[in-house]
Amino acid sequence: MRDVAILGVGMIPFGRRDEESLMDMLAHASLNALDDAGMGDKSVDAVYVANMGAGIIQHQTAIASSLVDRLSLLPAAADAVENGPASGGSAVKNGVLAVASGYYDYVLVVGGEKMREVTGWRATDFVSTMTHPEAEYPYGVTLPGMAGMFTRLYMEKYNVTREQIVAVAIKNQEIGILNPYAHIEMVITKEGIMDSPHSVVNNPVGADPLHLYDMCPVSDGAAAVVLCSLEMAQKLGKPKKPLVRVAGFGQATDTHTLQERDDPTDLKAVTLAAKQALDTAKLKPGDIDVAELHDAFTILEIAESEHVGFFKKGEGGKAALAGKTKLGGEMPINVSGGLKARGHPVGATGVAQVVDITWQLRHELDKNRQVKNAKNGMTVNFGGFGNNVLSFVLQRVEQ
Amino acid sequence: MRDVAILGVGMIPFGRRDEESLMDMLAHASLNALDDAGMGDKSVDAVYVANMGAGIIQHQTAIASSLVDRLSLLPAAADAVENGPASGGSAVKNGVLAVASGYYDYVLVVGGEKMREVTGWRATDFVSTMTHPEAEYPYGVTLPGMAGMFTRLYMEKYNVTREQIVAVAIKNQEIGILNPYAHIEMVITKEGIMDSPHSVVNNPVGADPLHLYDMCPVSDGAAAVVLCSLEMAQKLGKPKKPLVRVAGFGQATDTHTLQERDDPTDLKAVTLAAKQALDTAKLKPGDIDVAELHDAFTILEIAESEHVGFFKKGEGGKAALAGKTKLGGEMPINVSGGLKARGHPVGATGVAQVVDITWQLRHELDKNRQVKNAKNGMTVNFGGFGNNVLSFVLQRVEQ
Repeated sequence: MRDVAILGVGMIPFGRRDEESLMDMLAHASLNALDDAGMGDKSVDAVYVANMGAGIIQHQTAIASSLVDRLSLLPAAADAVENGPASGGSAVKNGVLAVASGYYDYVLVVGGEKMREVTGWRATDFVSTMTHPEAEYPYGVTLPGMAGMFTRLYMEKYNVTREQIVAVAIKNQEIGILNPYAHIEMVITKEGIMDSPHSVVNNPVGADPLHLYDMCPVSDGAAAVVLCSLEMAQKLGKPKKPLVRVAGFGQATDTHTLQERDDPTDLKAVTLAAKQALDTAKLKPGDIDVAELHDAFTILEIAESEHVGFFKKGEGGKAALAGKTKLGGEMPINVSGGLKARGHPVGATGVAQVVDITWQLRHELDKNRQVKNAKNGMTVNFGGFGNNVLSFVLQRVEQ
Repeated sequence: MRDVAILGVGMIPFGRRDEESLMDMLAHASLNALDDAGMGDKSVDAVYVANMGAGIIQHQTAIASSLVDRLSLLPAAADAVENGPASGGSAVKNGVLAVASGYYDYVLVVGGEKMREVTGWRATDFVSTMTHPEAEYPYGVTLPGMAGMFTRLYMEKYNVTREQIVAVAIKNQEIGILNPYAHIEMVITKEGIMDSPHSVVNNPVGADPLHLYDMCPVSDGAAAVVLCSLEMAQKLGKPKKPLVRVAGFGQATDTHTLQERDDPTDLKAVTLAAKQALDTAKLKPGDIDVAELHDAFTILEIAESEHVGFFKKGEGGKAALAGKTKLGGEMPINVSGGLKARGHPVGATGVAQVVDITWQLRHELDKNRQVKNAKNGMTVNFGGFGNNVLSFVLQRVEQ
């Protein structure tokens, strides 16, 4: 296997992007990444597009070939990869394997979703298409519903408090404001969303015990990375920006339905995917300087921070409340604002996590978002309700 | 890159499969392939699912993780790959790259589509979702419509006659009857579909100059392959069945719309993908003993047989009429019956082509379908209207 480098990354601001089509967003994020990689007029050999909903929302298929044409990258190979909210991670993985194999040298991976075309119950319904078609969907099970049940179980088993959960939302929205790509630009306080009499109105219950501000927004957005072999990247001459390598990655699946898991609070696929990624990279959780975890619901940041091994079970919530996962803390998590603030255009998220970690490892973010001397970063991209999880370990390559 | 072997293949009969869900079909084809590979209780490391329409037709996403659970292959990695009617080829390609890279050892690739849930104009509309969303779809352009225009141009430029085109349909339905997996089990004759007064009724115009029997049916179906490294396959001990290796593959894209091509009769992506596949395999078109070409419309078998280099431009139609592409002819094409008779469940087709060629190269088909001493086989899987094409060259490994 060849070592794979991240030669360039790009994103477009997440949020409502009514003026752009899905293809516009994919193209703009791609151009940002190609430009960042210094590709100039050079083409890529293959393109992977991560997307979950083009068929359902845009009534459109075969978007990968369409994007290649739009970007004038013909005759590059092109495939779309779908894996629910972990589509982005899956596309990055296949891009990495394509380069690692030696068959393709330069690969563009772009993830995007235009979710705001469906709002209200239709957005919830779209996301619910990933639930089990016989055992869940017909009974009205939704992802927020699953997350609510999971949160209740997790709180009971590990004595997680509402104060700890709320701390995640506050932290991520607080730093999200500093991220120019983030969807949500709004400070929330414990007083405003939990303690005051107004909090009942400000922060209504969504899926008990989860409230509005425990959930990520429905966003439009896209993110892209350009991959090539590390050896080739190093031969390109001294790059303008430090190189980052894909030191390891992992992917694991779990039962489709939560009800079939021996312990529904045990996110086995997260544990396995993260272990596989860390093992490949020959690193331990303690070696990671910064992480992007899939906080579609606040509880997930806490649960994942424990499952990947940053904290012991039952300690993740306490760590969040104590500020340990903030910038400057011992284990900074979601310094981008996470899904909670950056937003969660499903197909884009797994790619966006890799983009944000790359920026961290290049040390090129503003001081108020940069983790000092970050060398190793990690992502967790959570598909279904933990039934298909990808994790990447990225490493700064010292020149 | 590691050499990749096809350890097992499986299919289910294509046709109307009202009694089964998409997941049932994917599972059955997978089990046939896993069984054929002699996997026993052994799991695979990764699963790729090729599918185009689960979101639109079944209102379902994340089907790859669902399948892994259904097959008790947890915690194997799982991704769905979509590339229009070339989804099958794309999934096989990514499975091959995954093994070639050395990251995964055993990979299951399965393609399936349950298209009969939408019939009539809804089936045509579903397929049309691969057309350009601004330049084509809103104006009612359909795939049969594009194929009709292409046929007219091709007939004019290369003096292809209707008799030659009809010869493809007759040939493929004639041999399709002998294929137990084929959808269409009906002999057609030149008299019945072209010459007799009844042919106007029997074989009405679909998209001039294409008639009903120039088009593939709308089918349900699934097909699967199990891949592993050739070295590992050879170490497994003497296999019950001869091994087949993926000697080469290629993929190329072309403009999304036909109108942007300098010469709309020039299927550049077919030429490039086939050349890439043959070059990797270090073979020439003349070395190929049997081919599965993507005859969604009869003209495509003729055009592709020329573009991959089996015949000179303008000679493909004559070759078909002269019987050169029949079993026993100098270049047997679509001895399975092709899409015309086997059927075209879009996500399954690219995988089914690989399955059929594998059977040929193992010399295990009935005498009336087996190409004698076939050593090298080739596939062409045609996405969009030639805007995303994959080609594989498979080779029998002599023990």
